[in-house]
Amino acid sequence: MRISATFLDEISHDIPHQNWGRREWDADFAHMKAIGIDTVVLIRCGYRDWLTYPSASLVNGAHAFEPPVDLVRMFLDLSEEHAMRFFFGLYDSGRYWVNREYRKEIEVNRRVIDEAWNAYGGSPAFSGWYLSQECSRNVDGIAELYAELGTECKSISGGLPVMISPYIDGPKALGQDDPRTSREGGVSVAMHEREWDSIFSTIRGSVDIVAFQDGHVGFHELPAFLHVNKRLADRHGLSCWTNCETFDRDMPIKFLPIKWEKLLLKLRAAANAGIRDAITFEFSHFMSPQSAYLQAGHLYNRYREYLESLTGA
Amino acid sequence: MRISATFLDEISHDIPHQNWGRREWDADFAHMKAIGIDTVVLIRCGYRDWLTYPSASLVNGAHAFEPPVDLVRMFLDLSEEHAMRFFFGLYDSGRYWVNREYRKEIEVNRRVIDEAWNAYGGSPAFSGWYLSQECSRNVDGIAELYAELGTECKSISGGLPVMISPYIDGPKALGQDDPRTSREGGVSVAMHEREWDSIFSTIRGSVDIVAFQDGHVGFHELPAFLHVNKRLADRHGLSCWTNCETFDRDMPIKFLPIKWEKLLLKLRAAANAGIRDAITFEFSHFMSPQSAYLQAGHLYNRYREYLESLTGA
Amino acid sequence: MRISATFLDEISHDIPHQNWGRREWDADFAHMKAIGIDTVVLIRCGYRDWLTYPSASLVNGAHAFEPPVDLVRMFLDLSEEHAMRFFFGLYDSGRYWVNREYRKEIEVNRRVIDEAWNAYGGSPAFSGWYLSQECSRNVDGIAELYAELGTECKSISGGLPVMISPYIDGPKALGQDDPRTSREGGVSVAMHEREWDSIFSTIRGSVDIVAFQDGHVGFHELPAFLHVNKRLADRHGLSCWTNCETFDRDMPIKFLPIKWEKLLLKLRAAANAGIRDAITFEFSHFMSPQSAYLQAGHLYNRYREYLESLTGA
Repeated sequence: MRISATFLDEISHDIPHQNWGRREWDADFAHMKAIGIDTVVLIRCGYRDWLTYPSASLVNGAHAFEPPVDLVRMFLDLSEEHAMRFFFGLYDSGRYWVNREYRKEIEVNRRVIDEAWNAYGGSPAFSGWYLSQECSRNVDGIAELYAELGTECKSISGGLPVMISPYIDGPKALGQDDPRTSREGGVSVAMHEREWDSIFSTIRGSVDIVAFQDGHVGFHELPAFLHVNKRLADRHGLSCWTNCETFDRDMPIKFLPIKWEKLLLKLRAAANAGIRDAITFEFSHFMSPQSAYLQAGHLYNRYREYLESLTGA
Repeated sequence: MRISATFLDEISHDIPHQNWGRREWDADFAHMKAIGIDTVVLIRCGYRDWLTYPSASLVNGAHAFEPPVDLVRMFLDLSEEHAMRFFFGLYDSGRYWVNREYRKEIEVNRRVIDEAWNAYGGSPAFSGWYLSQECSRNVDGIAELYAELGTECKSISGGLPVMISPYIDGPKALGQDDPRTSREGGVSVAMHEREWDSIFSTIRGSVDIVAFQDGHVGFHELPAFLHVNKRLADRHGLSCWTNCETFDRDMPIKFLPIKWEKLLLKLRAAANAGIRDAITFEFSHFMSPQSAYLQAGHLYNRYREYLESLTGA
Repeated sequence: MRISATFLDEISHDIPHQNWGRREWDADFAHMKAIGIDTVVLIRCGYRDWLTYPSASLVNGAHAFEPPVDLVRMFLDLSEEHAMRFFFGLYDSGRYWVNREYRKEIEVNRRVIDEAWNAYGGSPAFSGWYLSQECSRNVDGIAELYAELGTECKSISGGLPVMISPYIDGPKALGQDDPRTSREGGVSVAMHEREWDSIFSTIRGSVDIVAFQDGHVGFHELPAFLHVNKRLADRHGLSCWTNCETFDRDMPIKFLPIKWEKLLLKLRAAANAGIRDAITFEFSHFMSPQSAYLQAGHLYNRYREYLESLTGA
């Protein structure tokens, strides 16, 4: 089991920014490539007022700030130089879909899809789309939002693949402001299966890849969820990846790099569930040799040793 | 718009200490100078039991601990070597003025002012004073505290300038223990203007420079407050600086360096309000190439590129 | 007063992992040795599901995870190479003893003691035991737990020394999820003395070293507690160390390295109480030149300067 993809955490909700320029990003793509990562997924092109590219529709229509750098262009160029695939993440208003005004979230993103494809669709590295609205439960309308946005992405781009990365509503699904690392309760495996069976039946054909986040449930409980995720995805013809998180949800500092043992355990659990592909959230803060968190560089080294052990075996 | 001053965060409330010795501080002053910072402002000479200099009055009278190093002397010497101006920050009891026993806060600081001027007033780098009691609203007695302490500082030192750095009572004005990054409500622009008009009318003549902290309101709301701050300061003959914070108040880790884009946006907003001078809180943790937070070094590089772009233009 | 011992924080509750391999640990032991540390104490051999060594009894009996590396073996080997003494920390179920099911906690640890001594007792570096159940108050049964486990450790190992490291139930004794850094109240010195007099009378003969954590009370209150700790230990024939914490409990980030001034003050307070030996929690995150927290390396340098000043004096 290898990690072949990573999110690019621009724009972030809750992870402090590293203030890298093009030189650092270039080096980071090289570090990714050296461990077999060939796909980068922009987690979102914008969040509320912050943008990764100069979007006329969002600056004018959603009073977002004009960004100082066109990160999408930079990431596409770097992807091309490093022979990586780039997936474009849609805009997360942080408002409409949280308040379940899905129609508005869809409308603002229709303009973004159009804009993005016109501006960047010509890049040979533009390889897919990511729907940035993260959910865990089958709340009314969320599946239709995925279906409609996914269809829009695919139709404008000649069928490029569309990815989502939901989370499991487990004990570690906590608000950003919550000082705890865990809560009582959480969704049961059966309820999770029922709800996602329903969601998948709605989004099949519009979404190609589903990569559940693997950090919201206990380590003993994870395998059961992974098996359900894989079975459901197979049933509905979706490709099932794991989003193997490289940050540690069990610590009071939210968030620093995960302990290697935990990462290894999650990768093996995904492999045991028959999953073949892993994306991580995310390389540059939590796994990169040049991360501001020096634990990340050591995680990188541990992961390299693991890769060597696979080859040796 | 350039940052020409920084606070020195000794003693800190809430930012972990870097444990630098004289060598590291010397290097930091050189890093500051290289980007045009010519003024350093000691945020406070003492907080509760912790001191930056061996104060007989505070060790004996306020049971503070005798510090292992005389940081004030070291900062003055380094300021002289690097041709910087040093402002001395008063003592923050953390008790009296929080409980609005302003008379006691004034008395303890009268002794500190006397002591500091006697010990350090001969240094050619001693260039001003900073009143360390931070407030946001016109609570009874706070303006008089500023006026009385400012007058005392000026009269003992032959009129050296006195600075304050209030905050705006905005949505991000939260207690140190609050796990949230934002709250509902916050002062309105009109109320802010009314209260500070009143405070300024009391402190004019006793305080020379007001540098409002720029991090407690949303980025879209900041310009209106900056304009009010400048207009009020002009009206009352105070010099209006911006305290352009270099740490990020929007993140769960309290606190790490700010995203360059946000810093740039705040600097431009201050320039648009007609403000000419910026101090930051603070260089050594959040902007220094040798900060323990490596994001700070990248922020330094982004800021240098910005300076070069100004020169080039 | 010198620090001659450190805990090894594997497995951690609340301190993010550094992901070191053998090379980094080897270097860290050398860094320790260079400042006079000759004893390393494994804080616990396992916590809940996470283990430092492949324990058949815990993997099979407590559904713990098989660890990827035998850290106990590695630490013993490194201890031997660096001429250090290694203390083995018992298993902390995180369940039984928290729920006061002491009998279960004892039973699971009887098997661990047996297992550990069989596997590692032959190492010349194996020099003692650490009872990992941390307590502060004389709750029913805790003294008996210490006595029974301590006796077991000593009897199987030919009387090797047994250490505990309790905490003082002071204002900074807060749950991991508590965003505050301090609370009202806390145990009085008199009550602390009464309760620990009782505990010591039960554990004497079974426990050899008591190293109270020094970070849960205010800096002005610490000396009184240190004197009580020393007097009580002397009365009951225990060796009294101080556990001089090298992380800062007063900061919102939980936890980063402590300010040197605070560490110095605590070391001197312990010396003044007649205490001769200090262990720290812990070197590798908070005091090591290769820590991910760069403040730690500066703390190391400040401590070295202090050692030099002792030698010079």
